[in-house]
Amino acid sequence: MDYASATPIHPLVSLVMNKFTKENFANSGAIHDFGLKAKKILEANRKMIGELLDAYTNEIIFTSGATESNNLAILGVVGKLAESKLLLVPHIVTTNIEHASVLEVCKYLERNKKAEITYVEVERNGIVDARNIRKALKPNTVLVSVMYANNEIGTMQPIREIAKEIRHYNKKYPHPTSPYCRGRRKEGIIFHTDATQAVNYLPINVKKLGVDLLSFNGAKIYGPKGIGVLYVKRNTPIQNIIFGGGQEFALRPGTENVANVVGLLEALKITEKNKTKETKRLTRLRDYFFKKLMQTFTDNNIIINGDLKNRLPNNINIAIPKVPSDLLVIELDAKGILASAKSACKAGDSKSSHVIRAINKNIKDTDGSLRFSLGRGTVRKDIDQTIKTLSEILNKLKKWYN
Amino acid sequence: MDYASATPIHPLVSLVMNKFTKENFANSGAIHDFGLKAKKILEANRKMIGELLDAYTNEIIFTSGATESNNLAILGVVGKLAESKLLLVPHIVTTNIEHASVLEVCKYLERNKKAEITYVEVERNGIVDARNIRKALKPNTVLVSVMYANNEIGTMQPIREIAKEIRHYNKKYPHPTSPYCRGRRKEGIIFHTDATQAVNYLPINVKKLGVDLLSFNGAKIYGPKGIGVLYVKRNTPIQNIIFGGGQEFALRPGTENVANVVGLLEALKITEKNKTKETKRLTRLRDYFFKKLMQTFTDNNIIINGDLKNRLPNNINIAIPKVPSDLLVIELDAKGILASAKSACKAGDSKSSHVIRAINKNIKDTDGSLRFSLGRGTVRKDIDQTIKTLSEILNKLKKWYN
Repeated sequence: MDYASATPIHPLVSLVMNKFTKENFANSGAIHDFGLKAKKILEANRKMIGELLDAYTNEIIFTSGATESNNLAILGVVGKLAESKLLLVPHIVTTNIEHASVLEVCKYLERNKKAEITYVEVERNGIVDARNIRKALKPNTVLVSVMYANNEIGTMQPIREIAKEIRHYNKKYPHPTSPYCRGRRKEGIIFHTDATQAVNYLPINVKKLGVDLLSFNGAKIYGPKGIGVLYVKRNTPIQNIIFGGGQEFALRPGTENVANVVGLLEALKITEKNKTKETKRLTRLRDYFFKKLMQTFTDNNIIINGDLKNRLPNNINIAIPKVPSDLLVIELDAKGILASAKSACKAGDSKSSHVIRAINKNIKDTDGSLRFSLGRGTVRKDIDQTIKTLSEILNKLKKWYN
Repeated sequence: MDYASATPIHPLVSLVMNKFTKENFANSGAIHDFGLKAKKILEANRKMIGELLDAYTNEIIFTSGATESNNLAILGVVGKLAESKLLLVPHIVTTNIEHASVLEVCKYLERNKKAEITYVEVERNGIVDARNIRKALKPNTVLVSVMYANNEIGTMQPIREIAKEIRHYNKKYPHPTSPYCRGRRKEGIIFHTDATQAVNYLPINVKKLGVDLLSFNGAKIYGPKGIGVLYVKRNTPIQNIIFGGGQEFALRPGTENVANVVGLLEALKITEKNKTKETKRLTRLRDYFFKKLMQTFTDNNIIINGDLKNRLPNNINIAIPKVPSDLLVIELDAKGILASAKSACKAGDSKSSHVIRAINKNIKDTDGSLRFSLGRGTVRKDIDQTIKTLSEILNKLKKWYN
């Protein structure tokens, strides 16, 4: 029940990675035969990953993970524009429920006066209104970053609609000039989406989505840990944030981890093949989970976080007033059920989740929230077991937290 | 003959990594049992890696590789001091033969006026004089970055002597105040060394070396690709360069790759165990290589690059006037010998190596250079074979390049 924080590696993925590693360990930058072979495999895999995204080969950049991909997207665009000295203070539009790897970058830029940030508030169902993104755009806006699906409450954002709003704005104001602009900016506003939680279930055709930058990783799609992708549309103004050799079209120096790339392609292929079927299967299970929840906890004051329908098929998130989240996770764990209180990246900081606070103003730090995330191994009886166990735990804890 | 660009993964390393991956794939940030177990293994491995370096557990930071470690060391220190607003223009001292992941960071900082850089020239034998580093120190110097051993010519730098010079300077000028300083800086000058090529053969006791920051990776020590280490001495002013969750003591966000950490410890243990023996064995082989070279190419105008004695036991680097490097690598490759023209990170840019140019002012872009790097699989007859093949190739090419 914690597939959103980590997925087991698919046996086929391990197989192709081990096969590659046994045959070739060369540096893909070396010009001897083994190096060239590694390079060839790297580029063939890059091409096929590109095809699965409907992108060109040289639009696929490999990084060390989704955190780095998100950092590269934002810092890379801001850095490039800063070096080209077109803008004095670039402006970024994002939402208030992004992952830490987007929010913390924005806070860093804001703190150091390197960018002005607008955090557009999502609606009470956890979904941002594309028109509110449109309203936040200004002449000095250089980047919009909105996640495809939220990691805690699973709500899916209207990426295509936001892309449309940005396209219209770019058309209406093709050459923004303002006190912020030293010159003309041809590129228009860049649109980035963090698709890390979405890849398993939602379409990832970058052309249809209308994005310029898209991040995801291997660890959440039953693939290898330690590899991320940033799709970078041609002609997007962006520069590297780590400096060194010229690898990854000079956008990400460091020896390429070819085995991980091979594993990522395999994982992505499996994901794409099963997407429709698995989405249907999990949607049924998720809706069954919600139904059982509402049947079981009629008086227990349980709140369902996020939109009931417009959310990832594998995500359930509930708020339980007054009962500490971490205690619930530990009690469930003792009964063999793995759940999560909030994003693993922010676990243990004892505050309530910024995402839950964003959609529920009445939530307190003492209120608990629980995320259950389903995956390839989840079946109906796991859900029955989870609801039963949760009910027992809450009955036990009721007298202590009231 | 190309172990310096990549090493095969030791079978024991694969074994422990596969064992770990099979048992646990949880996110080490999760607070359920599997997550806590992963976290526990991560921290136990961190502790043991620390012990092998004579460092505290929380002084070991895991990154995605040596390139990122070097970037974190330099950008992290400069970023921290910039945010604390103590200095207007920080000054960095480095050498002219560093790896691209140090030089390119410095050039970026210089280009953007974020730092002033002094590139101290090495002597003709490829070794920097510690007194020249001392002479370059100024009141606004915040960081010295000198590699432990060079990746191309294998020369070892006097890290302890440089550390001593810096310590003396810090003692003599404990609170530098100058037009550059807005306030007092307690920390003194920070000393970073890139030990990536050194770990297999040289002592890595950070206390005895006297460094504040030390980088290396798994890929060059017969360990996993995609993992680097940055040793960060307690109280060193440094901040993260990638933003997100609070992993790695907030210095490197992103889900930890525990399997890679497990593999890195195993690789480091094997390296430490065999260091003395392997260093002796390879030193004999290297010296045999040099002897045979001088015996074979008496009239062929071959130049040995770098110091004959004060170099890594596995490194041979020669310059061959007028014959293109890449052609030599390809000809050798056709005969089954893998060598390298320069660092794989800079291969293919058709200019002569910045390292060779630094030690030999007469070298031209049309002159070739070759690096042979020995490793655990190299035996004496490989060297005989290499010399014989090289001699045949040069005889063949003589009439074309003269």
